Amino acid sequence: MMNRGLSIRSKGSSNKSRGGGGTSGGFSFSSLRGVSQPELSKKLYRLIKSENNLISAHETAGRERVSIATQLSEWGEQTNDDAVSDISDKVGVVLSEIGEQEDQYAHALDDSRAVLKAVRNTEKSVQPSRDNKAKIADQIALLKTKEPDSPRLVILEQELVRAEAENLVAEAQLTNITRQKLKESFEAEFAATIERAEKQIILARHGQRLLKLLDDTPVVPGDTRAAYQYSGQARQILNDAEDDLREWQPEIQDDDAEANGHEGSITGNGHTEEAGAEAEGASAEGVAVVERVDGEAA
Amino acid sequence: MMNRGLSIRSKGSSNKSRGGGGTSGGFSFSSLRGVSQPELSKKLYRLIKSENNLISAHETAGRERVSIATQLSEWGEQTNDDAVSDISDKVGVVLSEIGEQEDQYAHALDDSRAVLKAVRNTEKSVQPSRDNKAKIADQIALLKTKEPDSPRLVILEQELVRAEAENLVAEAQLTNITRQKLKESFEAEFAATIERAEKQIILARHGQRLLKLLDDTPVVPGDTRAAYQYSGQARQILNDAEDDLREWQPEIQDDDAEANGHEGSITGNGHTEEAGAEAEGASAEGVAVVERVDGEAA
Repeated sequence: MMNRGLSIRSKGSSNKSRGGGGTSGGFSFSSLRGVSQPELSKKLYRLIKSENNLISAHETAGRERVSIATQLSEWGEQTNDDAVSDISDKVGVVLSEIGEQEDQYAHALDDSRAVLKAVRNTEKSVQPSRDNKAKIADQIALLKTKEPDSPRLVILEQELVRAEAENLVAEAQLTNITRQKLKESFEAEFAATIERAEKQIILARHGQRLLKLLDDTPVVPGDTRAAYQYSGQARQILNDAEDDLREWQPEIQDDDAEANGHEGSITGNGHTEEAGAEAEGASAEGVAVVERVDGEAA
Repeated sequence: MMNRGLSIRSKGSSNKSRGGGGTSGGFSFSSLRGVSQPELSKKLYRLIKSENNLISAHETAGRERVSIATQLSEWGEQTNDDAVSDISDKVGVVLSEIGEQEDQYAHALDDSRAVLKAVRNTEKSVQPSRDNKAKIADQIALLKTKEPDSPRLVILEQELVRAEAENLVAEAQLTNITRQKLKESFEAEFAATIERAEKQIILARHGQRLLKLLDDTPVVPGDTRAAYQYSGQARQILNDAEDDLREWQPEIQDDDAEANGHEGSITGNGHTEEAGAEAEGASAEGVAVVERVDGEAA
């Protein structure tokens, strides 16, 4: 963190200028990349793809952890040392549950990834609205130069007003969806990060207790070790871990209630899969807004 | 945990019977597997290999997280929304640091993996000692049947006593190294799990604070959002996160002092790379022990 500073944006980034490129309605590189995403949704499209790699990495980590846990237990049994056998088996149980938590984390990341798709889909759907507005404006400008008295100018200007109204709604939907879903997605991601962390801390602490039951005082050759007496305590530690995990609860956020007050709005009219669900709850308000805008535009 | 029970050992496991297989000195499957590990160290050899997969998975997760963080920041810039731009950039900084912690975790796992190698190497070195003892005992038994008056019997029995003494030391080294390094390795692993968890909790909590600065109250079409005023606060949150990370300290374990009292002993005589370092500190005691055993055996 110390060296990273307060921004991770690349200095030479030309995103700002490229950001509005969609409005030119012109040539796009998307086809060259084999990805039919409009400029507006391209960055998020790639980010969502990258999230897939992150999710598989955590899935792999969880799976390998569970496999190592089993191997540790089986190795311990082979040592023919009761203490090592019991402790390695029970540490294995703890490691296996740490792996299980890693897997659940991967699933939670997948859920928060799905939320971002709503933003991407809205971006994708707003692009044609911008393009259409720009195209009509271009036509008007051209006609004004070539045929300033053309009767088509009146029609085109009516069309432009309608396109602008439609775009006004689209842009409002975009900002609303973007902010709400961005917050929702990363709130879920941070909450999942905390949940995994807190649960793995519980497990690791009990794992440390288990290791303390293993007497590692060195013996001299020919001495036999005292008989292992802690299998009851070791079992109790696993029970404690199980209880602690069962009792775990997410910390309530102060302003969840407030945040929920923002739900439902003009967040889409069913034109994206994910936004579709919300559109129902928001339809009354959404329709009202569209009417108001139509009224203004007319 | 609930469904996993108190052991993760496979029920039908035949490790116990196979575990002692090495002492027969006979045929081993190791060559068929392309792995020249004696039976005794085979399971740990594989476990240590599996740890590699776990470590790369966490490395990949860290790398992907950092990449997603940058992408998020660059996407945010493209939205031309000051609030989204600033928050996504700063959330990106937090995510990037979460990825950095994931990478450090991978390195810590790699260190604890190296500790386990000391056990594997000792296992590997103890196998010939067991084999040698068994071979001489076999020769004596054979000779007693075929030539009960052979003068070679006396020599072989002397050899057996020496082999037994040598093996007694080897077995003591094995149990000492096994218990000490098993504890050391998994204590380090649990400590690293707790460190990653606690640091990622710090980061995630500050990430949640950042998200709260993003106003997601829906706007109606045509309305403009209030100007974004929180860039100072957002910057302060990153500073707080940085301070909290810097001040993080591992919780002191109650009985670390006690555990350290066990260090140094007959934990090897330089016959494994990792144990070599300890052998120096322990050499005085180690030599004394060997002398005592030699005395007994003579």
